[in-house]
Amino acid sequence: MLAQLIALDWGTTSLRAYKLGPDGQVLEQRSLSFGIMQLPKTARVIHGRECADGFELAFDEACGDWLDAQPGLPVIACGMVGSAQGWCEAAYRETPADVADLGHSLQTVRSLRGVDVQIVPGVIQRSRLPNVMRGEETQVLGALQNLAPGAGGDLLIGLPGSHSKWVEVAGGCITRFDTFMTGEVFAVLSEHSILGRTQQHGAAFDGQAFDRGVQVALSAEGQIGVLSTLFSARSLGLTGELGAAAQPDYLSGLLIGHELAALAQVQRQRRHSVHLPSIVLIGNGALCARYGRALDACGFARVTLAEQATERGLWQLALAAGLIVSPSR
Amino acid sequence: MLAQLIALDWGTTSLRAYKLGPDGQVLEQRSLSFGIMQLPKTARVIHGRECADGFELAFDEACGDWLDAQPGLPVIACGMVGSAQGWCEAAYRETPADVADLGHSLQTVRSLRGVDVQIVPGVIQRSRLPNVMRGEETQVLGALQNLAPGAGGDLLIGLPGSHSKWVEVAGGCITRFDTFMTGEVFAVLSEHSILGRTQQHGAAFDGQAFDRGVQVALSAEGQIGVLSTLFSARSLGLTGELGAAAQPDYLSGLLIGHELAALAQVQRQRRHSVHLPSIVLIGNGALCARYGRALDACGFARVTLAEQATERGLWQLALAAGLIVSPSR
Repeated sequence: MLAQLIALDWGTTSLRAYKLGPDGQVLEQRSLSFGIMQLPKTARVIHGRECADGFELAFDEACGDWLDAQPGLPVIACGMVGSAQGWCEAAYRETPADVADLGHSLQTVRSLRGVDVQIVPGVIQRSRLPNVMRGEETQVLGALQNLAPGAGGDLLIGLPGSHSKWVEVAGGCITRFDTFMTGEVFAVLSEHSILGRTQQHGAAFDGQAFDRGVQVALSAEGQIGVLSTLFSARSLGLTGELGAAAQPDYLSGLLIGHELAALAQVQRQRRHSVHLPSIVLIGNGALCARYGRALDACGFARVTLAEQATERGLWQLALAAGLIVSPSR
Repeated sequence: MLAQLIALDWGTTSLRAYKLGPDGQVLEQRSLSFGIMQLPKTARVIHGRECADGFELAFDEACGDWLDAQPGLPVIACGMVGSAQGWCEAAYRETPADVADLGHSLQTVRSLRGVDVQIVPGVIQRSRLPNVMRGEETQVLGALQNLAPGAGGDLLIGLPGSHSKWVEVAGGCITRFDTFMTGEVFAVLSEHSILGRTQQHGAAFDGQAFDRGVQVALSAEGQIGVLSTLFSARSLGLTGELGAAAQPDYLSGLLIGHELAALAQVQRQRRHSVHLPSIVLIGNGALCARYGRALDACGFARVTLAEQATERGLWQLALAAGLIVSPSR
């Protein structure tokens, strides 16, 4: 089957490439470790010319053979590839940002083989504490495509990760969003703080330890804040109440619990309502499962998962940009 | 002048030794890097015998010459040296813990040279989220010695550090305390997270950046919690609103601000009062100065510094234990 589009999800530490067929179906996909902070360094010949540029090398690794087979394929990319440290900077669009409309603001970079790569801009919220995203705007569009018409008024889209994002949408626009550094804080504390010294890793997910951490964050004791409750991951070990193998998932639950307790409080304040919005989660399945457990404990009653949000979002943006023509038109 | 006591403040990363004269005056002091996690490893002869034990080697480095000059000097030590990973474990005393009475619970270890080292026990609070201290109990005693009689009912003792402690006292007893991992979180985020990548270190203290971080933590935006506000240390840099040299002190102010905002809230709840307690700070001068600025911003109106709390506390415990006799008796 002939491909219609090459779609790249190009972040800080990874590069995912999708070969998409008619109606955006995934014909083939690849995952490479060539994020923009770990590009390949060994020069080689590309399209008849010696090349040492990391972006060109990674691009060629990701989809050079697809382009050899179908030289005219359009290419679209989202993520940190459009940042100041990326291949070509795609200036942020400001909130409120119509995500479907981002297809009219693509930034073009011409690759060595003569193919144009269209880069999706990120979104910035210029509040007192600014927020930025790159890649998540495309996933939000992909998730919105799958929702029933009319959904979205009481909706919050969650994108767990190193820096999790919680995105408010209205009328197809990203109106406001928050960032939590929960994933990265978990990683650096586990690898570099005293909490990591007694952690034993490698066991299967310990749901009981995770839930216990969530409950501590939500408890009266948790109101003292995460900088203090963190120490319980050590002190409960000292008193023999938390085994070494349970400590990583306890810490994970504690941090995610603090994130979601704060999120619930902020959402109620902003909505002037005790009711919490419906949640659509996008991301890694195991991580979304953790967030699902914790969201339930925090009183978020309606949680669904959005599948293939990135590739669907990129497909929609390529359609909007006229890079491809929908066969149904 | 003849010494009366050798007092050791022996923590995880450092070992401070004091030679104390009549009435506890400091005749000489030393600071070594031989904390219990970085003991010396090169074997040598001590008191006529080949020795490879890290505790013995560090002890001899710290005060062997003082003991050679006055072989009968008593020795007392507080801190992590009494932990399970220390020289000899001194079991925790439970709250409420009468700090002056800790002198009756010293744990003895006999050194290679035949001198007994008396180790002060730490204190544990067996609450739902347990808290532990080792060394701070001695500093609290030292600080209480300097207070006017009758003070203490409306008092909170703060010990900023990698793991800061906030200690409630009543009638000479430690009744309750909280731990915040603020200092260690600052260190690991600065060294190992994305926030550190854009930080420029080495400049003089930037009070304006620090105060700005504190104000963010105390603001309406700060209520979303530190896991979220952390990201502003990056996003304000991206928008050009926070220079690289200002980022370390902004992050420091942000974290300390979150710690103290939570502390103020918890103290008001526990005291069923809008009034905040008086504060006595113990610790490193530069760090106490940061906390003093932030405490002021948080509404703690009365803040004083306790000097020489460790050596005074150790002196008092040695007196209580009968290791020395007060010349004024």
